[in-house]
Amino acid sequence: MIFSSSLLENAVAQFAKLPGIGKKTALRLVLHLIKQDSSDVTQFSEAISRMREEIKFCSRCHNISDTQLCNICSNRSRKQELLCVVENIRDVIAIESTQQFNGVYHVLGGIISPLDGVGPEQLNIDSLVARMDNEGITEIIFALNANIQGDTTIYYISKRLKDFPVKITTIARGIAFGGELEYADEMTLARSISNRIPVENYIVSGNK
Amino acid sequence: MIFSSSLLENAVAQFAKLPGIGKKTALRLVLHLIKQDSSDVTQFSEAISRMREEIKFCSRCHNISDTQLCNICSNRSRKQELLCVVENIRDVIAIESTQQFNGVYHVLGGIISPLDGVGPEQLNIDSLVARMDNEGITEIIFALNANIQGDTTIYYISKRLKDFPVKITTIARGIAFGGELEYADEMTLARSISNRIPVENYIVSGNK
Repeated sequence: MIFSSSLLENAVAQFAKLPGIGKKTALRLVLHLIKQDSSDVTQFSEAISRMREEIKFCSRCHNISDTQLCNICSNRSRKQELLCVVENIRDVIAIESTQQFNGVYHVLGGIISPLDGVGPEQLNIDSLVARMDNEGITEIIFALNANIQGDTTIYYISKRLKDFPVKITTIARGIAFGGELEYADEMTLARSISNRIPVENYIVSGNK
Repeated sequence: MIFSSSLLENAVAQFAKLPGIGKKTALRLVLHLIKQDSSDVTQFSEAISRMREEIKFCSRCHNISDTQLCNICSNRSRKQELLCVVENIRDVIAIESTQQFNGVYHVLGGIISPLDGVGPEQLNIDSLVARMDNEGITEIIFALNANIQGDTTIYYISKRLKDFPVKITTIARGIAFGGELEYADEMTLARSISNRIPVENYIVSGNK
């Protein structure tokens, strides 16, 4: 692409650095911004740079936060003894958006994956073990992706926690709500059969 | 989506205002920026705000420009008497990228489209006619999208220019009818410029 303006070229190049944004999409976005009010574009660029400058990670759960302790950890109406272990910030947002979970989180910052060179020492596992000592946690729910890496991570952390008097659970694996049985993969279907639940539990949770 | 950080939420909301960017994509982009160096993010936001503050439109051809006269109009090695009429800035970039055109441009800023409420008076047509008086232009090439609106615009402007001793051509229809100029590949676009045809021929073949 050949530009007659270096200001335009530079802005397009910056957008095109973002993942999944090609040159043509970047150009479309920049031309959109040119048409907006100057104050709107200032708001846009300030929101980005301010976010990057001021954002913190919660010192307790490693979730993204505006403050030293995130507003989930500091919310006293949440069950501090119920801990949900997730891979990353996106998973926190996904679970929070269901409005069904009233405990606190621990963000691992990744998942054990030897093929990608990610071992336990790169993840926030030591700080999780430390929380067991200090916070009177009674149940840990693993909400990790259902694959080999997720299972490995659950297995590894469970072993690290075996001396603590804590109930360890994982979110249910099964057929997605609205999913067709015949299109489910064998692994999922097999697990959903072996982990079947009493109908009265299902109906109760379904009615919530 | 429920966020635990208002800085994050605000940045995501700003990205989600862009065309074609939904909330999930916006979140992905913002989380990408969080992982980048602070200086890279500053560069990003400054490139955007600086572009919006400082960008100008060329006083002659209405192309986007860093200066009062764009660097195409002010380039004396280009044929100032060969004028290519385009709908918008994206089309200038598309044609420049073919490196096949050595004249200058006139950006209409839109296309005649009564259904969308766009008439000739909203477009940079008067300034085009004024250029005919002042710049000794010998040929006008219409490089407009191949659709009804494009044809209407060609027809209207041709009538306005009928008293000037100027050759009027249009890029060859190598581009499919209904196709958008900015998505054409450079080869097709380059050929359609070098094989441009006189408008009277085009209208005859178009009516067949």
